[in-house]
Amino acid sequence: MDRIYEIFEKVRRQAPLVHHITNWVTIGDCANIVKAFGASPVMAHALQETADMANIADAVVINIGTLDLSIFEAMKSAAAAANKKGIPVIIDAVGVGATKFRNDKIKELLQYKIAVIKGNASEIAACAGINVTTKGVDSGNVCADMINIAKNFAVKHECAVAVTGKEDICANGTDVFIVKNGTPMMSHVVGTGCMAGSVIGAFCAVEKDYLFACVSGLVCFEIAAENADTTSEGPGTFKMKLFDKISTLSDISINKMKKVVKL
Amino acid sequence: MDRIYEIFEKVRRQAPLVHHITNWVTIGDCANIVKAFGASPVMAHALQETADMANIADAVVINIGTLDLSIFEAMKSAAAAANKKGIPVIIDAVGVGATKFRNDKIKELLQYKIAVIKGNASEIAACAGINVTTKGVDSGNVCADMINIAKNFAVKHECAVAVTGKEDICANGTDVFIVKNGTPMMSHVVGTGCMAGSVIGAFCAVEKDYLFACVSGLVCFEIAAENADTTSEGPGTFKMKLFDKISTLSDISINKMKKVVKL
Amino acid sequence: MDRIYEIFEKVRRQAPLVHHITNWVTIGDCANIVKAFGASPVMAHALQETADMANIADAVVINIGTLDLSIFEAMKSAAAAANKKGIPVIIDAVGVGATKFRNDKIKELLQYKIAVIKGNASEIAACAGINVTTKGVDSGNVCADMINIAKNFAVKHECAVAVTGKEDICANGTDVFIVKNGTPMMSHVVGTGCMAGSVIGAFCAVEKDYLFACVSGLVCFEIAAENADTTSEGPGTFKMKLFDKISTLSDISINKMKKVVKL
Repeated sequence: MDRIYEIFEKVRRQAPLVHHITNWVTIGDCANIVKAFGASPVMAHALQETADMANIADAVVINIGTLDLSIFEAMKSAAAAANKKGIPVIIDAVGVGATKFRNDKIKELLQYKIAVIKGNASEIAACAGINVTTKGVDSGNVCADMINIAKNFAVKHECAVAVTGKEDICANGTDVFIVKNGTPMMSHVVGTGCMAGSVIGAFCAVEKDYLFACVSGLVCFEIAAENADTTSEGPGTFKMKLFDKISTLSDISINKMKKVVKL
Repeated sequence: MDRIYEIFEKVRRQAPLVHHITNWVTIGDCANIVKAFGASPVMAHALQETADMANIADAVVINIGTLDLSIFEAMKSAAAAANKKGIPVIIDAVGVGATKFRNDKIKELLQYKIAVIKGNASEIAACAGINVTTKGVDSGNVCADMINIAKNFAVKHECAVAVTGKEDICANGTDVFIVKNGTPMMSHVVGTGCMAGSVIGAFCAVEKDYLFACVSGLVCFEIAAENADTTSEGPGTFKMKLFDKISTLSDISINKMKKVVKL
Repeated sequence: MDRIYEIFEKVRRQAPLVHHITNWVTIGDCANIVKAFGASPVMAHALQETADMANIADAVVINIGTLDLSIFEAMKSAAAAANKKGIPVIIDAVGVGATKFRNDKIKELLQYKIAVIKGNASEIAACAGINVTTKGVDSGNVCADMINIAKNFAVKHECAVAVTGKEDICANGTDVFIVKNGTPMMSHVVGTGCMAGSVIGAFCAVEKDYLFACVSGLVCFEIAAENADTTSEGPGTFKMKLFDKISTLSDISINKMKKVVKL
């Protein structure tokens, strides 16, 4: 059986609990995508309970899309609890590079043990301290070799790095995969990036090889997106069908449609 | 005319204002479901206005899905104002049993006069002080007789209790109804539980028999869900069609499809 | 080429960054509608970054739907930064008239230089200090001549005023347009009002004639709504198709369908 499908099936079978501290724009999308994959989402951001929630969870997804100071304290508490328990922490570096606040706060979050950091090219470059300009939450052009930036970042933080875009780069200190699935429609809908982070969280919750968990999650998510795009009439129908297509994803379509290259 | 349809029609005709202090995951779903039923939702959580909002409302729905300390103060203020005005307070006990924070805070909320408490089996059991383990926001298995737990809780707090699940238990101190409508698809979509709480809020706003308001709201909501499931291709289309099917619900379909047993 | 379509095309081509400090109910809808028009939404509410975000944005949309004190400070910071930079500030006066808190806070926000204030009739009347009763977020009946209220308000605050309803009034100190597009279904879905505010934000970001930017944005949005309504089966499908129809809006349909009267 294909290894990607195997991990996908583990998500469905084990239904891991994925604790999110995420943003208010896509929080419902993130919960629904985790649910569509058969996993169990929980969203909780009160400092008084985030450590307890992390303690019953199988992964923690931290998304700084609408960060504020009180949420930030909750994120640190959840990350610390997750590190102590030994479950993966996934950071979605939304909007890093756009403001000093985000640049500062991501640095603090990166002092925890991170399983995966995820972002678009400009966000990951900004996390790595390379000077780029982020325009909102959309991907900018990156002036440097993104694969090297990702690899160096992975070595420095001993984590996997997922750089999403037209083609996704998934790297750790030793290996690099390029995921070529997906559809341009994904960039016309708010939330596909955040959902990808949540999917990575669900996959890392069941697979200790975090790099391949990223690859697998992105392949499944993006094949579903391709299937949704085929019959959609715009961003509205596309987003709705995306959830449908995940729930009907099969080993046959994964095998036939996956586009992954190991560098 | 069927009494369930009668209450449903009262919601449409009177368009009650349902004030929510709810969670950030499903806040849009809750507002939309209330609107689909013809009622008028308002969401407001600032301590400076929650009492004023409750004062112009016909029901207050308190959902602790993403509780934090400042929201909690607003909930208490709204509950106090609602009690003073004599309008129903509906509590959706999301995630009770998962953390000490929720267990503690729900106790404080239950010191107000409550019309209805709503939750899945593990949440209601946890509210009643019976030791269960909640896994995220999904329903766990409950070790005790859920009907008795619900009845005892109803007696103690002089309220109606709605335990949602494959079959819903609606109980007060004297009567118990079992609602057998619904579809498994409801558990594959985030927000159906929270929406059920909002629907109960809209129905209690127009019907002083809170037990039967719960029964009526759940029957209507779940028949619409059955209708939506018939033509949906997954959780995405299902959720969208759920709103459609509520707006076209008729007395004929309620009469033909309702599955309610009085114990 | 039609001037309305011209501004619509400028939104698509320039893809302005529209910074929102908005409510938690419709925040995802607001982001998605801006995206569907081809513009770039960013949502950020931490006081530590709202000024920085406004500084890289092309317009700032402030929506007080779920206002609280900490968000309010962020709104003032963003408005001040936007004023300094010279980009338009759009205020969506959600729920003004419902509570003293909103009435007080809108007054403070109106001390900044505003490009557009948007609301339904009762909200705008309440902003103008005329005594009306707001029932939740829905439009009430207004006892006075709404066109005059809008004009006087525009003169006093040197801004454009958009009063949405069955027919929309767009006024500044000298001109008044009535937009007669739209469909009753819009009032059966939560978020159409907030989305209209975000659309106005995107259009004002590319067009200095803020009055006509309002007219253009509302015409495009409401034609898309008419198109969505034609094939929808209720509020669920309608909302989904609304996003689709925006992405396929053409100069031909705008020319053929627009219903605008200059008074």
